Amino acid sequence: MAGQGRPKLGAQRTVTLKDVAALAGVTPMTVSNVLNRRSGQVSAETEAKVNAAVERLGYRPHAVARRLRSGRRNAIGMLVLDDVPAFLSDPFTNQVISGLSNIAASQGYTLLLQGVRYGNFEDAPLLAQLEADGVCALLSGTPQQRRSLLQRLMKLDLPLVLVQENIVAPGVCTIRQDDRGGAVEIARHVLARGARRIMMLLPAEEWPAMNEREAGVSAVCAAAGARLEIVRCGDEGLADTQAALAVAVSAAGLPDAIIGGNDRMALAALNWLAAQRVPVPDRVRVTGFNAFDFAAYSTPTLTTVRSAAYEMGMRAAEELLLAFRTGSFSAPDIVLPVGFQPALSS
Amino acid sequence: MAGQGRPKLGAQRTVTLKDVAALAGVTPMTVSNVLNRRSGQVSAETEAKVNAAVERLGYRPHAVARRLRSGRRNAIGMLVLDDVPAFLSDPFTNQVISGLSNIAASQGYTLLLQGVRYGNFEDAPLLAQLEADGVCALLSGTPQQRRSLLQRLMKLDLPLVLVQENIVAPGVCTIRQDDRGGAVEIARHVLARGARRIMMLLPAEEWPAMNEREAGVSAVCAAAGARLEIVRCGDEGLADTQAALAVAVSAAGLPDAIIGGNDRMALAALNWLAAQRVPVPDRVRVTGFNAFDFAAYSTPTLTTVRSAAYEMGMRAAEELLLAFRTGSFSAPDIVLPVGFQPALSS
Repeated sequence: MAGQGRPKLGAQRTVTLKDVAALAGVTPMTVSNVLNRRSGQVSAETEAKVNAAVERLGYRPHAVARRLRSGRRNAIGMLVLDDVPAFLSDPFTNQVISGLSNIAASQGYTLLLQGVRYGNFEDAPLLAQLEADGVCALLSGTPQQRRSLLQRLMKLDLPLVLVQENIVAPGVCTIRQDDRGGAVEIARHVLARGARRIMMLLPAEEWPAMNEREAGVSAVCAAAGARLEIVRCGDEGLADTQAALAVAVSAAGLPDAIIGGNDRMALAALNWLAAQRVPVPDRVRVTGFNAFDFAAYSTPTLTTVRSAAYEMGMRAAEELLLAFRTGSFSAPDIVLPVGFQPALSS
Repeated sequence: MAGQGRPKLGAQRTVTLKDVAALAGVTPMTVSNVLNRRSGQVSAETEAKVNAAVERLGYRPHAVARRLRSGRRNAIGMLVLDDVPAFLSDPFTNQVISGLSNIAASQGYTLLLQGVRYGNFEDAPLLAQLEADGVCALLSGTPQQRRSLLQRLMKLDLPLVLVQENIVAPGVCTIRQDDRGGAVEIARHVLARGARRIMMLLPAEEWPAMNEREAGVSAVCAAAGARLEIVRCGDEGLADTQAALAVAVSAAGLPDAIIGGNDRMALAALNWLAAQRVPVPDRVRVTGFNAFDFAAYSTPTLTTVRSAAYEMGMRAAEELLLAFRTGSFSAPDIVLPVGFQPALSS
């Protein structure tokens, strides 16, 4: 089959900056100003003319050379540490990246995306060669693994934004959502509906956001004298969650409410309760966390907390762009609000 | 708050290639060979020593300059045309990108990710400046919009892979999954279970993959003399799908089987049938397409077709890498198999 579908790799590229300038009726310096995003120096009308000429002629400036001269790479690196091959499947992850990508693109920045498996040392050279002006990272794994990756990232000596972490380190900006506040609201909601025995579903592995959610629920239950049992659900997938729930219920009986550490575990619980013919919410109230699309598809629809994932991605890009311009972030630790989203499961 | 969280932008970078060579006990040329992935010329042991020295010293080669000399950018561009801001939410999209990213990273290639809104002309300069050796694109929109974006992409004059398209164009490789074959299997399955009146749920907007699924179901129904009604479900979201289904059922009565053009529409149908207290699968059999994680969470679990999205992403990267080395793709049009995945809903 070789020879079919041959890319035109050898085609000539003859269009120059001067051609673009001539077609747009401006000077080459003006074209350069537009291409280098010094748009304060040209009118919107001129910019549109130049862009139209670039588009019409198919002009591709030698951006590598241009960036070498400017010392800027005009790129943001996005690193996702996850041991799952499909590292973009998690709605939280892909919404953060969508938000970041959209802001970056709107400011003429390229997004360099890389999934990193923990302990994959072959990634080290690629990380070291990352051609970005700054980096946003989503860590995962044990606290020790996170610290180790953070140290490696700090060696890059670039502005660094961590999403959903609460580490204080020089040159690092953390952007989190108010997981504790959301959890407080969820816990108050089920207590107000009369629940006194609560089970909270959490993954086996601890991480900052889950710890915050646990702390919020725990504080509300303690203050109200309600009983809280933490159920560790392995990898938080369907099988692990349902198995852990079955063991917990067989030992302690059905609770009045099941608070999922996230929607995924809550949906697994809803599913398991349906199979056991336990009425929801009449017998057991169920809630999730991080309302993504599929919360609306469950029967009954899932009470949950709307995540700020997309907004955190946008804010991460904005903070990096600010650091590129001014040398500093607006704050070392930024917390964005979440929204309580009641539905029929509670 | 300014001044807090200050990135160390001005820190000195004194580590050179020679420092790395000295620590690793090799020549600078060997370090260069490793960093430029000419790994056939060095032993695995030497490569490991060099990588360890790079890591230990925090060495960052001036990759921009190096790539300028080599004429290679060592980067693959991934473009997603989608008018939704959270353009990575679709499991199909994020699995393609995960597969592509993992293969690219394993070969030392950076992934440049960009979401493009159709008709957003401000994206044009960014697209023109795309510093990649080749591009993979996921198009969307009307046939006319797709053709228009394809023309723009072809102007880049780079090896181009389109996922889930069936366009024949010079220098373009298309990678698709066997949507028609999967649909044939689904249709035969529900007919074998006795269904004679079928409704198929499809989005209002037509695109190649959905057309293939419709063609597969339609051919099987026609051959068996079964009645097929196509129900157009607007944007394929929960509200549009349930509204369209309600209208169709009120006009024609309940069918024996509902074939969702994808899982999302099938889950909306399951949900609607549950609300109407219609037993599934006893009264109506329901199937989806593109088994992603949430198919397992429905009650009853959803019969569907396992998508080859992740594999298509891997193959896209492999074809681009082949084109970088040899100047051509292995074939102009590649079709990957899908897997029928029976569950309790049918």
